[in-house]
Amino acid sequence: MTDALKVGIAGLGTVGAGVVKSLRSSGDALAVRCGRRLEITGVSARDRAKDRGVSLDGLAWHDDPLALAADPDVDVVVELIGGEDGIAKQLAEATLSAGKSFVSANKALVAHHGTALSALAASKGAALRFEAAVAGGVPVIKGISEGLAANSLSRVYGILNGTCNYILTVMEETGRGFDDVLADAQKLGYAEADPSFDIDGIDTAHKLAILASVAFGTGLDYAGVYVEGMRHITALDLEYAAELGYRVKLLGLASLSARGLEQRVHPCMVSLETPIAHVQDVFNAVVCEGDMMPRTVFEGPGAGEGPTASSVVADLIDIARGNVHPILPSAPRQDVAGVPMDEHMGRYYVRLSVLDKPGVMAGITNVLKEEEVSMESLLQRGQAPGEAVNVVLTTHESQEAKMVRSLDRLAKLDFTTEKPEMIRIENL
Amino acid sequence: MTDALKVGIAGLGTVGAGVVKSLRSSGDALAVRCGRRLEITGVSARDRAKDRGVSLDGLAWHDDPLALAADPDVDVVVELIGGEDGIAKQLAEATLSAGKSFVSANKALVAHHGTALSALAASKGAALRFEAAVAGGVPVIKGISEGLAANSLSRVYGILNGTCNYILTVMEETGRGFDDVLADAQKLGYAEADPSFDIDGIDTAHKLAILASVAFGTGLDYAGVYVEGMRHITALDLEYAAELGYRVKLLGLASLSARGLEQRVHPCMVSLETPIAHVQDVFNAVVCEGDMMPRTVFEGPGAGEGPTASSVVADLIDIARGNVHPILPSAPRQDVAGVPMDEHMGRYYVRLSVLDKPGVMAGITNVLKEEEVSMESLLQRGQAPGEAVNVVLTTHESQEAKMVRSLDRLAKLDFTTEKPEMIRIENL
Repeated sequence: MTDALKVGIAGLGTVGAGVVKSLRSSGDALAVRCGRRLEITGVSARDRAKDRGVSLDGLAWHDDPLALAADPDVDVVVELIGGEDGIAKQLAEATLSAGKSFVSANKALVAHHGTALSALAASKGAALRFEAAVAGGVPVIKGISEGLAANSLSRVYGILNGTCNYILTVMEETGRGFDDVLADAQKLGYAEADPSFDIDGIDTAHKLAILASVAFGTGLDYAGVYVEGMRHITALDLEYAAELGYRVKLLGLASLSARGLEQRVHPCMVSLETPIAHVQDVFNAVVCEGDMMPRTVFEGPGAGEGPTASSVVADLIDIARGNVHPILPSAPRQDVAGVPMDEHMGRYYVRLSVLDKPGVMAGITNVLKEEEVSMESLLQRGQAPGEAVNVVLTTHESQEAKMVRSLDRLAKLDFTTEKPEMIRIENL
Repeated sequence: MTDALKVGIAGLGTVGAGVVKSLRSSGDALAVRCGRRLEITGVSARDRAKDRGVSLDGLAWHDDPLALAADPDVDVVVELIGGEDGIAKQLAEATLSAGKSFVSANKALVAHHGTALSALAASKGAALRFEAAVAGGVPVIKGISEGLAANSLSRVYGILNGTCNYILTVMEETGRGFDDVLADAQKLGYAEADPSFDIDGIDTAHKLAILASVAFGTGLDYAGVYVEGMRHITALDLEYAAELGYRVKLLGLASLSARGLEQRVHPCMVSLETPIAHVQDVFNAVVCEGDMMPRTVFEGPGAGEGPTASSVVADLIDIARGNVHPILPSAPRQDVAGVPMDEHMGRYYVRLSVLDKPGVMAGITNVLKEEEVSMESLLQRGQAPGEAVNVVLTTHESQEAKMVRSLDRLAKLDFTTEKPEMIRIENL
């Protein structure tokens, strides 16, 4: 048997403790699978005294995580600290510069610095792995970069944030409002005290930017992701969506076409006929569309100790087996431009709150006609002369810029009583 | 760039032609992904003159596929001939004996001889790959053996045959009978002229045996798979299933517990709440349950030129990248016994056709009580005194042997007018 792979772990929160537990409890089985042992030799975390439910006996303790990169008794560093810059980035750079492989669950770090880190890894002959950064325990990075490697992919999309999906699922099932369900999710530990990272779409955008780079061989372009969160979604819109045969999901979508690379994160209405509509609660799913495989779906829990540790350990197993080809392009394609969101072509659902009086429908349709937005359906919900009622419309494929202008104008019409609600309809 | 990987292809049917097309049309992109070219150097098929839609110019032609194993200009042989024995097996043995890697889409070959071939591969330092043999283009072999490699898996199950799933989907949607839908599927090319391999569950059983060996590290035990096909399923049972909140799927299920290894292929009633219930038409899906990842789902097209070629080429990419660890255990676990189907514990749906007269319900319940089968529900469908009506019952968890004895006895009761119909209910 080859020498053990010596692992240093920086960050001993829930996931770090999960990795330690896994390597200890499954050590013999993993050694059989890899042909060598995975041995933790060093750890670093903030508080040495904290009880993590695992013994750290026999492991070298480093107050400074950067010491792991320098430790000759460490072959590969696992970074579970988090944060796009600061110590996580320094540790990545120090580890790879030392020619050692680097495993991370840190989506912010990879989304912002992945291309540079990949180039550094390639120049040093080291591996950069981050399966746990996208969709938790679901092996989707491997699925794309290896399982579907024969394909030219045209679109990758998914439910990448369990918190958002949980909130949408409960809102739809119970008819309760966003704030109410969010508060419950916070009590249950499904949402953070400051939930903006999740519900404003930032977490999904990090993961989407990573998926796009892996899938298309383009450089990471987090700044090029259009990001819209889900705070504006109401239970009423979920109800109307269901009537139209849709379900609302916060998706990250990346597509590559002759027009360039589109990267978008926003709530979407998706047909109940498509697999992703049935991914509920905290589950994540990623769908890949390629020239040979028209649709592959990867689904499972996207967060938590077990799932995240599962992917971190899978990365270590790959490294132990010598499966260390680059996942992110170290020399990304330069021939692909980003498509600005204004130029996005898609279908739209719009709900307007308007006074129920003659001329309203004409006023709405005139605006859309003038802005060249092609309507598919227009329906007033209920009757209440002189009072506010909802009008729901859907469009054929139209340009985002024209839709946005239409919404601005519709908001200013004298019969409009509230800011219009818009949700994009995706043909998946 | 490293030297090209020289590929010999045996069998130039639809999939073989698809592999040739893919390596030609995506050659440059694949070379970037692998760091070396994938070059077809030799081919073998029955008829040299046949038009396959791809040019064979510049490729060495061998009338005898075994010549590919001996050809010094071939590093890896792709076997797309089929059949569990005969030339496919000879070619596998000759290739691996020569220390060359072997890629196959042949589930019958792997299901019957995988363990021996894996031992041969290990002894020669060659790779044995067969991603395309299970679920077509869905990278589930890789997902289990690499993506979920940190897990101790307890259960793997799936929809592994698109023909069966297509027939069940159409039967449920249209209410048409099995024979009728099968005939249509044959016209559409979704079912073979002789459909028994698919609808009698043999194809699913081959794939399940492979999945079990990959997932649990046990030796291949195709003979240990309980196999029941779907010819007995009626549209009426699909209708009753829907009323009970279930959908009927032909599943392969393998589970490992303290009792041993269970491998079963048969129609199942599955809750509409579980992801696999929503896998329709010709799609395949595999669900894995592990200690760290409680549920991972892999889904996509399980057959056809593009999907199958996608997996064959992915295997070649792995070999080109040097990712050649063993997938099947070369020294399988010896501590796991097979659980006989008689000892299976599960829930059951039973439909009886009986004369509508007093005492029938008592007659049924007495049999079940005496055989220690615990009933969950019992419902007579409609009323027609003196004529045949359906009685539908479901059970709590009971032993297969007891259920089978109950069915034998129920069939012989004087009020029973037809052979009872039984479908197992799976808690997934």
